[in-house]
Amino acid sequence: MAVYLDHAATEPLRSQARDAWLEASVAVGNASSIHGFGQAARRLLEEARERVAAVLSCDPIEVVFTSGGTESVNLALRGLWTSRAADATAIVLPDGEHHATLDTVEALRTQDAAQVRPVALDSLGRIRPDAFARELPGAALATALVASNEVGTISDAAALARTAAEADVPLHLDAVAAFGHIDVDFRSWRGAASGTTGLVALSVSAHKVGGPVGVGALVAARTAAIAPLFHGGGQQRGIRPGTQDIPGAVAFAAAAEAAVSERAEEAARLSALRDRLVGTILATVPEARLLGDPVDRLPGNSHLLFPGASGETLLFLLDQAGVAVSTGSACQAGIPEPSHVVTAMGFSPDEARQVLRLTLGRTTTDADVDVAVAAFPAAVERARAASGLSSGARS
Amino acid sequence: MAVYLDHAATEPLRSQARDAWLEASVAVGNASSIHGFGQAARRLLEEARERVAAVLSCDPIEVVFTSGGTESVNLALRGLWTSRAADATAIVLPDGEHHATLDTVEALRTQDAAQVRPVALDSLGRIRPDAFARELPGAALATALVASNEVGTISDAAALARTAAEADVPLHLDAVAAFGHIDVDFRSWRGAASGTTGLVALSVSAHKVGGPVGVGALVAARTAAIAPLFHGGGQQRGIRPGTQDIPGAVAFAAAAEAAVSERAEEAARLSALRDRLVGTILATVPEARLLGDPVDRLPGNSHLLFPGASGETLLFLLDQAGVAVSTGSACQAGIPEPSHVVTAMGFSPDEARQVLRLTLGRTTTDADVDVAVAAFPAAVERARAASGLSSGARS
Repeated sequence: MAVYLDHAATEPLRSQARDAWLEASVAVGNASSIHGFGQAARRLLEEARERVAAVLSCDPIEVVFTSGGTESVNLALRGLWTSRAADATAIVLPDGEHHATLDTVEALRTQDAAQVRPVALDSLGRIRPDAFARELPGAALATALVASNEVGTISDAAALARTAAEADVPLHLDAVAAFGHIDVDFRSWRGAASGTTGLVALSVSAHKVGGPVGVGALVAARTAAIAPLFHGGGQQRGIRPGTQDIPGAVAFAAAAEAAVSERAEEAARLSALRDRLVGTILATVPEARLLGDPVDRLPGNSHLLFPGASGETLLFLLDQAGVAVSTGSACQAGIPEPSHVVTAMGFSPDEARQVLRLTLGRTTTDADVDVAVAAFPAAVERARAASGLSSGARS
Repeated sequence: MAVYLDHAATEPLRSQARDAWLEASVAVGNASSIHGFGQAARRLLEEARERVAAVLSCDPIEVVFTSGGTESVNLALRGLWTSRAADATAIVLPDGEHHATLDTVEALRTQDAAQVRPVALDSLGRIRPDAFARELPGAALATALVASNEVGTISDAAALARTAAEADVPLHLDAVAAFGHIDVDFRSWRGAASGTTGLVALSVSAHKVGGPVGVGALVAARTAAIAPLFHGGGQQRGIRPGTQDIPGAVAFAAAAEAAVSERAEEAARLSALRDRLVGTILATVPEARLLGDPVDRLPGNSHLLFPGASGETLLFLLDQAGVAVSTGSACQAGIPEPSHVVTAMGFSPDEARQVLRLTLGRTTTDADVDVAVAAFPAAVERARAASGLSSGARS
């Protein structure tokens, strides 16, 4: 069995989630039905909603179940856009956001005449609250990653939320990569904000915390003005209609609770494993560099630059050696594109093609790290040779 | 255990689907990842897509997995609308469509200035191809139920598709209620149509055939012009991005295959059970009437009018007697609304409040029918008394 160091792409399903799904899958009935079967189904669903609300620190009615992170982000951004003040047309968009955000904002720009106000990242991948705040006045909405899905850098969500509240702008936080790994506290981040501005929406996904794929949530503040993406039925405050996936919701709740209850212990364990992984690679591979914030980063995330070696080639060579990693960059039709996150941190497009993301998770062991670090020197050597550069050459 | 006669709301999960979900849930990896885990995940996903394509009679690339029927319908209607010819603004909309369709078209009307061309149903709930055809010329798109989710009447999908091809208008068929119960054959219904018109999109949902809730598909013809609802990643031809739910897709495939392979036998069994249910109720409850087409109807569907008795009240009384049914009408905030399908068939709003939908399915037994028919006379008597009418009085 190969070593899986791509937990950020998807975390294996937790046994608690599988068991919960199985148990709930036996129940008969649509939660919108009035009869006894429907009432029992609704109780299961609402209990799951309460449990998810508890781990995210929000009210149960604020939890809107979706089909996952992509839908949650789309619902938040388009929903806030559609409900915006008539004279507001700008979207505040940090440079290193996930493609679900980038592509949705691009659609709003090209189809709906939204104006984009970019926010530069610093060299560690952080969204600086002062830079963010400068772009907020008069904006229709703002969005920000709590932690980067690529380089793992954690931004200061509470500070970003304060700037949005002060500027009276609705803020969406993308907590898909952060949830389960750091404390995600909607109520405290929202703070004293009220009405339709400040932090009003926050996206999470079940499969990133060991729940099922195809399940996620948007935390939508009670007072938020968020238009639906879908129409039909009136489920979930009308924000997200459709027959609700009860086994999915229950499994999500079980996974989220497990992730949050183990978080402190796992963060320490994964940070230590990750530091050994990174330390050994840096010691054995000349010129490799760790990107992102060395301190404020997701415990399981490492993101490395290998000058002179194509990330794509490295990925294939490591895969052959039984180590599954990712470049962290979108790859369309087989053409490797440089990571927009890495270029946003000030690196060149060439450098942004020479990166790998190694992400550890619940099932990662000491032995996995041993296998991975042993595979790197030869893989990097071959990747450099393949790109026509000698091992010591700079890219 | 109460008797469940609301299979149209949701069908209990099939054991084949549960087993398939469980087996696939053990696999590690995101189908978009390049490494070996990702490739294995993708193989599982694409095999499920091929199996779903086979039962729907379309090409695998035409199967776009979604989170269910509501999303599929929204994606088809809004996606076709967004990609319409610039000078086309009309949507052809039969009167008895599902709320996912009605509410999406209403949003397009109020927000996007779509013009609605209604098509009247006949007294049996059928969409007449000639009436449909009259509204098509120059329309941006048309939509139609293959079979009514409420009254069970089956329209002539092939004939409707021919009218759309002849008029050069893109057509979406809502096969959510029909799939698994009658033959759904995308290729043959599309016929000789090509390009962006004729039958180009067809919606189905997994949980209506004993698959999991939260999974569905839109069949989108290769040449269809359908803009996405979501943005991010490039999954599924860009029509529906987001990390794909492999256990859900595999479970859907297993359920769909089981439903289709049992269909002929089950249709005969359910029709016989349903005819006994209806026949006994009509014999024991004065003035009750069967609505919808007595011949061309879904095998498990019965839809009855009980003059003088509120459907809502009947539903509650039958639930107390251990029989779970539905009124078939949307009920918002506890205010029973008359079924728009029944009024579209020419009945008064009062009559449309006096209906019940009883739907049989895979788990329905002879004994279930015995319990149900025994409960009706007293329930109808009490419901009529509750509405202040004597048992023989007309509403």
